[in-house]
Amino acid sequence: MIDYNSLTDTFEAVWSRLTDAPTNPASPARFLALATVGRSGGAEARMIVLRAADRDQAQLTAFTNAASAKVAELSAMPSATLLVWDPADSLQIRLRSTVTQRPATDADWTRLPPRDHALYARDPLPGTPLDTPTANTPTPDAALFTILTARIDEIETLHLGRDLHRRALFRRADAFRGQWIAP
Amino acid sequence: MIDYNSLTDTFEAVWSRLTDAPTNPASPARFLALATVGRSGGAEARMIVLRAADRDQAQLTAFTNAASAKVAELSAMPSATLLVWDPADSLQIRLRSTVTQRPATDADWTRLPPRDHALYARDPLPGTPLDTPTANTPTPDAALFTILTARIDEIETLHLGRDLHRRALFRRADAFRGQWIAP
Repeated sequence: MIDYNSLTDTFEAVWSRLTDAPTNPASPARFLALATVGRSGGAEARMIVLRAADRDQAQLTAFTNAASAKVAELSAMPSATLLVWDPADSLQIRLRSTVTQRPATDADWTRLPPRDHALYARDPLPGTPLDTPTANTPTPDAALFTILTARIDEIETLHLGRDLHRRALFRRADAFRGQWIAP
Repeated sequence: MIDYNSLTDTFEAVWSRLTDAPTNPASPARFLALATVGRSGGAEARMIVLRAADRDQAQLTAFTNAASAKVAELSAMPSATLLVWDPADSLQIRLRSTVTQRPATDADWTRLPPRDHALYARDPLPGTPLDTPTANTPTPDAALFTILTARIDEIETLHLGRDLHRRALFRRADAFRGQWIAP
């Protein structure tokens, strides 16, 4: 039972969700929203799949296609937010992060389930107009498989309790010690 | 049964979720992510509650505290994205929008459930450090109750089918006619 009046428990609630997600398809942190600054200046957001969570380094890993808009957006502005919403616990987790990218290795490509290879494709590139959705017969290309690493700078939690909303901020610069703030 | 090979059905799937959410707490679009450009240049995101959906105008309504960071962020950059994820149907809905704001009227305030009044408070303002979460005894202030209106410019859907991913773009400039694009 999580005590949401405890900073320690709240921090544990965040990391238990993040470390569980990569191997638990039912985790509320399995799919999380990635918000970026778009190339025309406004904000963009889409769901991504959490592939790995490293608590010691406070880093998260996701996969993407090098030709996707988010790669260009993160190259121009790596300050992004990952957002988790756990409806069962009424817990929101905002992860302000700096996102870097690297091409996947041959070993990364081999570890992918073969049915996922089509996600990293050209012919057509993402965003190309299609006559029908089934007109999409992608050609896998390992060179497009890109690993995103989000270095978490700040974790901000909001717990919507029946009695009270509880908001806390944990900052890397402060060794994620934690501070309550007004909701 | 929604046919995700049909643009018409896909568009209906979007609007049935959006118009259902304000009165259905279990709707996947009840809580949606709002991504904005932060005041220091990176992207921010948080969940908001969808309060009204106007299909004819393609506009959505949410409530916020005038002292919240998102109000300042939207004043500086009104181009934002609202993001819905429906896990039961593996449907992602991205709503690129222009968000305007206005102070609530006395009638708006009176219509609020009284227990929600504390969400629009000063003493303390949002973000103020607190010693404990229970140290927060907010003083409601109707002047802080702010209505956000998101005018949807683009609806982008992504359906993660078992066989195929289907992505479509519906643009206001094109009367939301719809176009398949490569995922």
